[in-house]
Amino acid sequence: MRTTTGWQSLDPATNALTRVTIERRDLRPDDIAVRIDYCGVCHSDLHRIHGMLGEKDLVPGHEATGVVVAVGEAVTRFAVGERVAIGTIVDSCGQCAMCLAGQENYCYNRATTTYGGTDRVDGTPTKGAYSREYVLREKFAFHLPDGLDPAAASPLMCAGVSVWEPMRAAGVGPGSRVAVAGLGGLGHLAVKLAAALGAEVTVLSRSTAKEPDARRLGASDLLVTTDDAQVSAATGRFDFILDTISGDHELTPLIGMLGLDGTLCVLGNPLLTGPRLWELGAGRKKLTSSGTGGLRQTAEMLEFCAEHGITADVEVLPSSKVETALNRLATGDVRYRFVLDMSDLDTPAA
Amino acid sequence: MRTTTGWQSLDPATNALTRVTIERRDLRPDDIAVRIDYCGVCHSDLHRIHGMLGEKDLVPGHEATGVVVAVGEAVTRFAVGERVAIGTIVDSCGQCAMCLAGQENYCYNRATTTYGGTDRVDGTPTKGAYSREYVLREKFAFHLPDGLDPAAASPLMCAGVSVWEPMRAAGVGPGSRVAVAGLGGLGHLAVKLAAALGAEVTVLSRSTAKEPDARRLGASDLLVTTDDAQVSAATGRFDFILDTISGDHELTPLIGMLGLDGTLCVLGNPLLTGPRLWELGAGRKKLTSSGTGGLRQTAEMLEFCAEHGITADVEVLPSSKVETALNRLATGDVRYRFVLDMSDLDTPAA
Repeated sequence: MRTTTGWQSLDPATNALTRVTIERRDLRPDDIAVRIDYCGVCHSDLHRIHGMLGEKDLVPGHEATGVVVAVGEAVTRFAVGERVAIGTIVDSCGQCAMCLAGQENYCYNRATTTYGGTDRVDGTPTKGAYSREYVLREKFAFHLPDGLDPAAASPLMCAGVSVWEPMRAAGVGPGSRVAVAGLGGLGHLAVKLAAALGAEVTVLSRSTAKEPDARRLGASDLLVTTDDAQVSAATGRFDFILDTISGDHELTPLIGMLGLDGTLCVLGNPLLTGPRLWELGAGRKKLTSSGTGGLRQTAEMLEFCAEHGITADVEVLPSSKVETALNRLATGDVRYRFVLDMSDLDTPAA
Repeated sequence: MRTTTGWQSLDPATNALTRVTIERRDLRPDDIAVRIDYCGVCHSDLHRIHGMLGEKDLVPGHEATGVVVAVGEAVTRFAVGERVAIGTIVDSCGQCAMCLAGQENYCYNRATTTYGGTDRVDGTPTKGAYSREYVLREKFAFHLPDGLDPAAASPLMCAGVSVWEPMRAAGVGPGSRVAVAGLGGLGHLAVKLAAALGAEVTVLSRSTAKEPDARRLGASDLLVTTDDAQVSAATGRFDFILDTISGDHELTPLIGMLGLDGTLCVLGNPLLTGPRLWELGAGRKKLTSSGTGGLRQTAEMLEFCAEHGITADVEVLPSSKVETALNRLATGDVRYRFVLDMSDLDTPAA
């Protein structure tokens, strides 16, 4: 067994994580060990810490970048010292139609999540990247392209690919009229990526407060969703709306802003219930959602981001400040992603 | 004013319609007058008679075929004696983005429905094709192609185009794996049309009772939805599911049978509420609905039906039996569409 240090939620009532020693498996032939340098703080970490799925004793973290420190004997894609990125899943069955289609994220036999999952070989719970070392199959690790800052790139691994994949599936590109509802971790990356894909991007927000940021990120417009006149004037305006709002909210106004055959993709709150079908029928609109990304698409996104110089806007904190990050994230006080710097785990705990 | 005879719902508590004299407007320059020979009995007629929208005194009927008996002075597309078909809408604004896209059915300024609507010129209520004569703008009338039986073709004008348009929008064609849930007026035409488009078609039904019909209509398979093992074995099997079930029902099993990027189009019951978004997220599935068809697509469907010899399976009744037709439709006792023969309206009422 290898050991490392990480942050574990031992009391789901609070955001205070405990510094613990974690066991990592000895490398199997196709495993690599990664020194985790940075890990993004995802909104889903917050939900899962608080037992949304009845989970306990989680070590969160699935937006990681680092460096390979050891490789198994059969590893071919990575060498010690190379930069690497880790996302939301670390294994899948490899045999089902989804895996064969390169959508391991939708594996019919349930992809193994980076934390809170169950290892397919030894049955142990997976523990995430709020830790100094991670061990995974090389197949599920990604080369971090040159030129991408490892701290600012880490949120690409969940927030980034989560917005990238549905936009690509919907054919977002030059000429697309795209709206992004909610300008947070996912939303700000969606604006950057959609603009880089050539779309005309509008941010939908409750006020004009984020308008300067929206334009800086690449949006050509900000529409105030609390202004009925603006919403009404935007009837039929968008081909694709990406809804990254985490709270409960009405989908009806968003559907009204879709044009013929337009798509509303709801990512921010997958627990929402869909609208009455007749709302979609008037204009043959589509409602969809999506769940992170497959290996191929994640690699494509990283290459695209390297080519276009896209990373997240981040605030980097030492990992010992994880509670601060989680508390501020819970209140929406983040522009636009917290990233934990794991190097403080090399120092003995105070 | 012109006068004709028709069937009006004067008591929304029953399916008994009353034979009445109806006024039709004098022809405007771009109007044609049509002798209605046949009119299909649509499930929506039943709903609207019973005041679903708070309507009263309706003359239903929006699946009609007949012959031109008079033309306005500016009419160019029709001549007296030609065969004609009339569908669910008879006017629209002609100016909005939907009209300009050839989707008059989604007119942002509300298309004028064939019955229960309001004429855009004189403000009078529109009265439908459960009558011997109808007057409408030539733009909204269709040439009934040679070779199509006028009785069996009449249901194409709502049931037919209602399933045609979403299948075309979803790209149903050779190689598509299509399922049709519910084998009624819409469903049986969906099977015929999808099969003629080259798709592999499966009927989803609660029992095997309709299997011989399903195969005769062009399906290669029938899947029993009350058999959990069959449903489970069909996980991810379809690219497109057309749901024509009129009663309340769960969408979850249907969503489970969709593959990656598959589409569930719910037509039978637009009052249903969509599922939780996460159900769509697992596989990036799309939920949609649709509302009849635009002028261009309706004309294309009629041509396609003529080319492939497709009409509805109908039971033709004299229009005086309209109550019988509605009562039997309400209990599902129809294979697969009632059509009223309006010629009995030429004889004085008994």
